[in-house]
Amino acid sequence: MKFARLAGALNPSYIREILKAAVQPDMISMAGGLPASSLLPVKLVQQTCQSLADNVHLFQYGSSRGYQPLLDTLSQSDPQHPHPWLICNGSQQGLDLLARALLEPGDAVIAEVPAYLGALQAFQLSGATICPLNSNSEGPDLTQLEDYLQHPTVRLFYAVPDFHNPTGRVWSAGVRIDVARLCRRYGVTLIEDIPYRELRFSGEQQRPLSQLCPEQTITLKSFSKIGFPGLRVGAMSGPAEFIRVAERIKQAVDLHTGIPQQAIINDLLNHPGYPDHLISLRLGYQQRYQQLSTELHQQLGQQVEFETVEGGMFIWLKLRKGRGSEVAARALEHKLAVVPGAAFYPDGDKETDNAIRLNFSNTEPSLAAEAVTRLARSL
Amino acid sequence: MKFARLAGALNPSYIREILKAAVQPDMISMAGGLPASSLLPVKLVQQTCQSLADNVHLFQYGSSRGYQPLLDTLSQSDPQHPHPWLICNGSQQGLDLLARALLEPGDAVIAEVPAYLGALQAFQLSGATICPLNSNSEGPDLTQLEDYLQHPTVRLFYAVPDFHNPTGRVWSAGVRIDVARLCRRYGVTLIEDIPYRELRFSGEQQRPLSQLCPEQTITLKSFSKIGFPGLRVGAMSGPAEFIRVAERIKQAVDLHTGIPQQAIINDLLNHPGYPDHLISLRLGYQQRYQQLSTELHQQLGQQVEFETVEGGMFIWLKLRKGRGSEVAARALEHKLAVVPGAAFYPDGDKETDNAIRLNFSNTEPSLAAEAVTRLARSL
Repeated sequence: MKFARLAGALNPSYIREILKAAVQPDMISMAGGLPASSLLPVKLVQQTCQSLADNVHLFQYGSSRGYQPLLDTLSQSDPQHPHPWLICNGSQQGLDLLARALLEPGDAVIAEVPAYLGALQAFQLSGATICPLNSNSEGPDLTQLEDYLQHPTVRLFYAVPDFHNPTGRVWSAGVRIDVARLCRRYGVTLIEDIPYRELRFSGEQQRPLSQLCPEQTITLKSFSKIGFPGLRVGAMSGPAEFIRVAERIKQAVDLHTGIPQQAIINDLLNHPGYPDHLISLRLGYQQRYQQLSTELHQQLGQQVEFETVEGGMFIWLKLRKGRGSEVAARALEHKLAVVPGAAFYPDGDKETDNAIRLNFSNTEPSLAAEAVTRLARSL
Repeated sequence: MKFARLAGALNPSYIREILKAAVQPDMISMAGGLPASSLLPVKLVQQTCQSLADNVHLFQYGSSRGYQPLLDTLSQSDPQHPHPWLICNGSQQGLDLLARALLEPGDAVIAEVPAYLGALQAFQLSGATICPLNSNSEGPDLTQLEDYLQHPTVRLFYAVPDFHNPTGRVWSAGVRIDVARLCRRYGVTLIEDIPYRELRFSGEQQRPLSQLCPEQTITLKSFSKIGFPGLRVGAMSGPAEFIRVAERIKQAVDLHTGIPQQAIINDLLNHPGYPDHLISLRLGYQQRYQQLSTELHQQLGQQVEFETVEGGMFIWLKLRKGRGSEVAARALEHKLAVVPGAAFYPDGDKETDNAIRLNFSNTEPSLAAEAVTRLARSL
């Protein structure tokens, strides 16, 4: 068979390949972006699941926009949010829908690098090229951003302003205002991808970009990090005209997201125990982060450096010497799965091979010491 | 916002617009392709749902190919099937994945007309043009098919060989052999979309195309007509090389289909009561079909004509005079929702406006007489 050019050029996700290795027995996996299985709020949806089959209407065809009670919950839970919502199969599908709604082959998308590769894959599948944007601990490099924004092929700026994957960084208040101003000035659409936003365990929450430049902002919301990744339910919002086009594409690509899974998420969000679940999730991740951070300092000392994070799921560990790809390969032999930093760059640039990403949410705190010992052996 | 050309050109599905009107109180809807809610096998999955939340691993991230027990069930249930399976969000997503894997803008797809418009939408979203193929009660016009197949831009032949939507037709044994031979000769891929195949209530099952020209065939399987449309679980199979590419696209577009919904479908297929469910579903639809058919003959007599169907969900009702679109509009005023035949043609050709599609699966038998009375008033 002859494959379409863009589909044939798509590489298998390196990270998903590592995740296959990561399920071997005795492996400690810090590779994926998985929530802790022990903290998944299954107890809060037990009753919903038990009565699911009594509600036959949930098992019929539904609406492409989404299950109305869930759409209502989203609007009511954040009345300041300026745009309507569309339910999708995880926020990953939102990336695909918006890429198809907005990108022509040859268009360009700005993305902070290192970047979440799943997003770049979705853009590349629509034929877009990527403009890699550098960042520092405050957020993106604004001079480089403005240079890119002036380019006529640039259509989108893809951003993860809260607990960026893989760096864990949060944009400062000032950077948010500056980015909003630049996107408005150049009429470029900002994709605010915020799956980790609600996982803040210290410091202060920043304002969402959707409030700073609403007409330029599309927001991607995930229920995979605070609810259940396995259900594949996420949501996207943006200007009404955009959501109407995205809804038509959604009709053509899979009619609608399944209803029982939306009903489960809706009941979770409305459960009286949900706020407490979020608190314990944040505490649990803070504990995992601190344990790992302490072990990294104690066992690896000057061999590595990393920035403090205030939430999310990742530590971006810079190696003072050695290649991330070689460390990751040796770590697998020592039964530790991590992702080399170079995997987060669109071009696999050799110069970027000086870091690894450590996920702390999916490793029980009791395993942190052993994980770092295995990492130390791999350095 | 400026939208991508193909996305901007996408029309809202006429049928889904009618379905919105169809939920008005007192409306009898023969518009959608919905299974009977009263026959959905919710009882068979009650136990699965009740214990769903006890299986926390179902709520974590899963594999892009699909939930392994469901993949195993599919392989084991049809050992003669020549190809591996990939799970998707309903077979509608299979259409999108294969379009993206195989079609470049400007490629052409042959489709029997009248056609399932959801398929045409998926092809058009990938930039393909449609070659409309006529058919008779035995199957497609083989001379016209061969003419099309010789055209170098033709990449796919999209077919619904069992209880075609909207005509209800089944390809004869001879036509299947001829089509397989032609697809092999011209190296064109055949999409065998078989959502209604298991809904045969009389006559004899025909061989699937996947057995007649396996290397040229991609099969789309739906669980929406025999299980639950609301869950959005379907499956696609094809040559291994194709499934590998489709799986990578699936990664990029939504990572994977949700696991709890796949577990529910898997338990349904393996339930000891499942074969009996299929028998009562077929009997129920046969009863609905016969009731409707009798009323149409009695109340409408020579005003209409239609072919006998042996399964599926639809009667394609040809009007001896009058326009289908006008009849459908008047029927809505009389609280009956039906789809005008012209809606199933890619170009909305005026000459095709001489039929309406009646769905019989979703109307309780007791309502058939009243539905036809309303239709009679609309003629």
